[in-house]
Amino acid sequence: MKISINELARMINGSIEGDGERSVEKFAPIEEADEKSLSFISNLKYGHYLYTTKAAAVLVSRDFTPDKPTDVVLIHVDDVYTTMSNLLEQFSKSQNTKKGIEQPSYIASTAEIGKDVYIGAFAYIGENARIGDRVMIYPQSYIGDNAVVDNDTIIYAGVKIYSGTEIGKGCILHSGCILGSDGFGFAPQEDGSYKKIPQTGKVIVRDNVEIGANTTIDRATIKATIIESGVKLDNLIQVAHNVEIGENTAIAAQAGISGSTKLGKNIAIGGQVGIVGHITIADGAQIGAQSGVSKTITEKNSKWFGSPAIDYKNAIKGQVIFKKLPELYTRIQALEKAIKNSDARQKDE
Amino acid sequence: MKISINELARMINGSIEGDGERSVEKFAPIEEADEKSLSFISNLKYGHYLYTTKAAAVLVSRDFTPDKPTDVVLIHVDDVYTTMSNLLEQFSKSQNTKKGIEQPSYIASTAEIGKDVYIGAFAYIGENARIGDRVMIYPQSYIGDNAVVDNDTIIYAGVKIYSGTEIGKGCILHSGCILGSDGFGFAPQEDGSYKKIPQTGKVIVRDNVEIGANTTIDRATIKATIIESGVKLDNLIQVAHNVEIGENTAIAAQAGISGSTKLGKNIAIGGQVGIVGHITIADGAQIGAQSGVSKTITEKNSKWFGSPAIDYKNAIKGQVIFKKLPELYTRIQALEKAIKNSDARQKDE
Amino acid sequence: MKISINELARMINGSIEGDGERSVEKFAPIEEADEKSLSFISNLKYGHYLYTTKAAAVLVSRDFTPDKPTDVVLIHVDDVYTTMSNLLEQFSKSQNTKKGIEQPSYIASTAEIGKDVYIGAFAYIGENARIGDRVMIYPQSYIGDNAVVDNDTIIYAGVKIYSGTEIGKGCILHSGCILGSDGFGFAPQEDGSYKKIPQTGKVIVRDNVEIGANTTIDRATIKATIIESGVKLDNLIQVAHNVEIGENTAIAAQAGISGSTKLGKNIAIGGQVGIVGHITIADGAQIGAQSGVSKTITEKNSKWFGSPAIDYKNAIKGQVIFKKLPELYTRIQALEKAIKNSDARQKDE
Repeated sequence: MKISINELARMINGSIEGDGERSVEKFAPIEEADEKSLSFISNLKYGHYLYTTKAAAVLVSRDFTPDKPTDVVLIHVDDVYTTMSNLLEQFSKSQNTKKGIEQPSYIASTAEIGKDVYIGAFAYIGENARIGDRVMIYPQSYIGDNAVVDNDTIIYAGVKIYSGTEIGKGCILHSGCILGSDGFGFAPQEDGSYKKIPQTGKVIVRDNVEIGANTTIDRATIKATIIESGVKLDNLIQVAHNVEIGENTAIAAQAGISGSTKLGKNIAIGGQVGIVGHITIADGAQIGAQSGVSKTITEKNSKWFGSPAIDYKNAIKGQVIFKKLPELYTRIQALEKAIKNSDARQKDE
Repeated sequence: MKISINELARMINGSIEGDGERSVEKFAPIEEADEKSLSFISNLKYGHYLYTTKAAAVLVSRDFTPDKPTDVVLIHVDDVYTTMSNLLEQFSKSQNTKKGIEQPSYIASTAEIGKDVYIGAFAYIGENARIGDRVMIYPQSYIGDNAVVDNDTIIYAGVKIYSGTEIGKGCILHSGCILGSDGFGFAPQEDGSYKKIPQTGKVIVRDNVEIGANTTIDRATIKATIIESGVKLDNLIQVAHNVEIGENTAIAAQAGISGSTKLGKNIAIGGQVGIVGHITIADGAQIGAQSGVSKTITEKNSKWFGSPAIDYKNAIKGQVIFKKLPELYTRIQALEKAIKNSDARQKDE
Repeated sequence: MKISINELARMINGSIEGDGERSVEKFAPIEEADEKSLSFISNLKYGHYLYTTKAAAVLVSRDFTPDKPTDVVLIHVDDVYTTMSNLLEQFSKSQNTKKGIEQPSYIASTAEIGKDVYIGAFAYIGENARIGDRVMIYPQSYIGDNAVVDNDTIIYAGVKIYSGTEIGKGCILHSGCILGSDGFGFAPQEDGSYKKIPQTGKVIVRDNVEIGANTTIDRATIKATIIESGVKLDNLIQVAHNVEIGENTAIAAQAGISGSTKLGKNIAIGGQVGIVGHITIADGAQIGAQSGVSKTITEKNSKWFGSPAIDYKNAIKGQVIFKKLPELYTRIQALEKAIKNSDARQKDE
């Protein structure tokens, strides 16, 4: 990506202060930029870098005025952060242009492969698997028999997708995530051993879902573990069998959802949260980091915190008082003594 | 699997109500079944589906009588759930029929490979490794030098088994699990840096163990980290170096067992539990989800909960009162005021 | 490694008690040793094994005197543990002698490969990647485009390193760890969906860092997620985007560091700890297992515990009283009753 500042400014509807003939080739944070870099100031706290940066051009807001002269070309835009984010998006798309089928890779003869795909070396596509158009499957990924990966989905290196899993359009699956492993289901036997309950269901992932590195999603016992459209899962999350996660719910790293629990839409779940099995969480609920949710949540958009999770405000109050427990203990002892003395005095009278 | 209803009924000792000449090809939940499906009703709550399902046949209990006429063929059996579970097991075994060695794969010339194995493409078998009969090693799995995988064990795609690891018979290892990585052992140096303590031991996994996706089991410093027969480990669990886990102990997802801790038999450990190093847990203990166990547990079959974990009943009581802490605080303040007033009145008198 | 006891004793400056002509071939714990084994007693508790072990030779301290005669050759050294640890280190280095490039592997034509490397089968080295001298890349690992792996670093089987990641000298990366996956950054849209914020930064790992199995480190949004020299990360840890971890900080398994948090040097973090985003932790801080750190820690070498984490000593006191909450509740009720009675008596008077 090499582009003149004039051309760039036209693209983003920016007005130039300085020499628009120069060109930029890449992005860089303002303190690390070199003479080929475009940078930005969205927070005035970092404004002073403008006088030391080597950047060729810097995005600033419409009303930004430098305190003193600078050699850097300024490009004034309406919303620096959004403009930068959009440019980064285009840039990262333009970077991700891999196409074709690297060798050696393994594609079963019965697999269907769409147009303009990328299939990296050492990737494996099983029997009757269906791979949509423009899908990118990075090296060392595994797509089991009968699995489906729909159009424009990106599967990074080393993802493992068990047989029968269905993945929608425009998803991003990060390295090491596992979809469709057996649910943790065992019937205790009289001798103390466990008999495996066959896990013959599957995993269904709808459109525009992002799944983080090393996250695991187990297949259902009979039906399907379902991740609805727009769900965002961070790294190292556990999603057990038969779970359903509603649209646009976001879950932070290392959280775990136990078997058969149903999460509604637009829920936000913090890191390291644990949710027990066989419960329901209402749409829009927010669960603070490290909480443990042990009961169904029926109130929409409610906030929860703690282990076990209770109403957020009460949890915060409780934690404040928890810190005072040693002091409270002393105060209770003092009260007991005072009562004793008071009683004694009453008797004396 | 295409089978006539008559034949199926004979297999499972069922009695048919309807046309036994029809045949079924697959299983499906009753609300999703099509005309080739066998389904079941083990919970009468779902009985109403009988009148709308497209299933060819439905397993029901001996004494089940439909409320109204239905086209579905009923197969009456003694125990619907167990029958269904056994059928699913046979079905899933009949599905898993992969055999032979896919190419390209890497098998060291000194490795010993048993009979009737499956070795998927891009699998790696190191020097002097021994692979038993009927072992299935899915694509992209790694079996290090001198490792042993005994008969009938299934290793799903992308499992990594470091050199010297020993795995017993009939085990199931899910994708992304790692066995034999170095234990976390470092000697602090005077300059604040750490010197690695060599981890030269190994991991031993006995028979009929199941290990979940992305679970990690570190090798011992000198001896062996040992997982005894019948142990069931869920996904994303950490088992540190020198740990020993007794027979038929089951551990839920994201739990972590620190170094040198010994777990007894038939223990049940909830999700996200943490157990400190160098302690012992008695047989049959039960540890509630998210608990933190910091001391040896000597009483068999005892129940524990909380962080730090205490006796289960006391933990539940404590949590109930924790919710009342703000109220208790107010009550203590009221008591202090009352005592003050009472004392003042006494003085007045 | 076959060495005479005489030769070994010279190497480690030990004095022999017994027949130095015999030789040893391997290490073993004293209770498992055979006649080719070297073993050690660093803890006198295990001294009794000396009279039953089959070991050829046993390392003991200078002043060790057996209670009764033994056939085992004793080698007296200044510091048994350190001597043994050094020997194990040399032994494990002598074991790890893989070299050369196994086939099939994938090395982009533009990649630079150093001298004396090991590249295992099914490993992938992307465009313009730079691999230093004596680097070992085990099978099925992935080194993305433009990534750098400096001299003497070991990358075990199945590690995934996204494009642009930089790894220093002498590092050890265990199987399944993921470096450079996208940070978890999404801008909420008005319709409840999320728009991905492009993650165009990178991950930088300095020298002598060890990263555990299945640990994940996300790339920065724009700049770099940085792991400084000497850092030791255990298994299944989450390091979010823009995090910086200072020199010689050690983090135990399953801990998680949220986005943009900066950890100082020589910090010790227990297992399953969670640290919120956008805070700073001072050098030398110690955080107990399962703690949740929600605020910046400014005091160096301070100790913290609990969720939310508070001063370690107060946390321990609070936990002691937490166990007494049911009892305290009863005592408060008793006080309320006593006050009521006392007031009643005062009124009576």
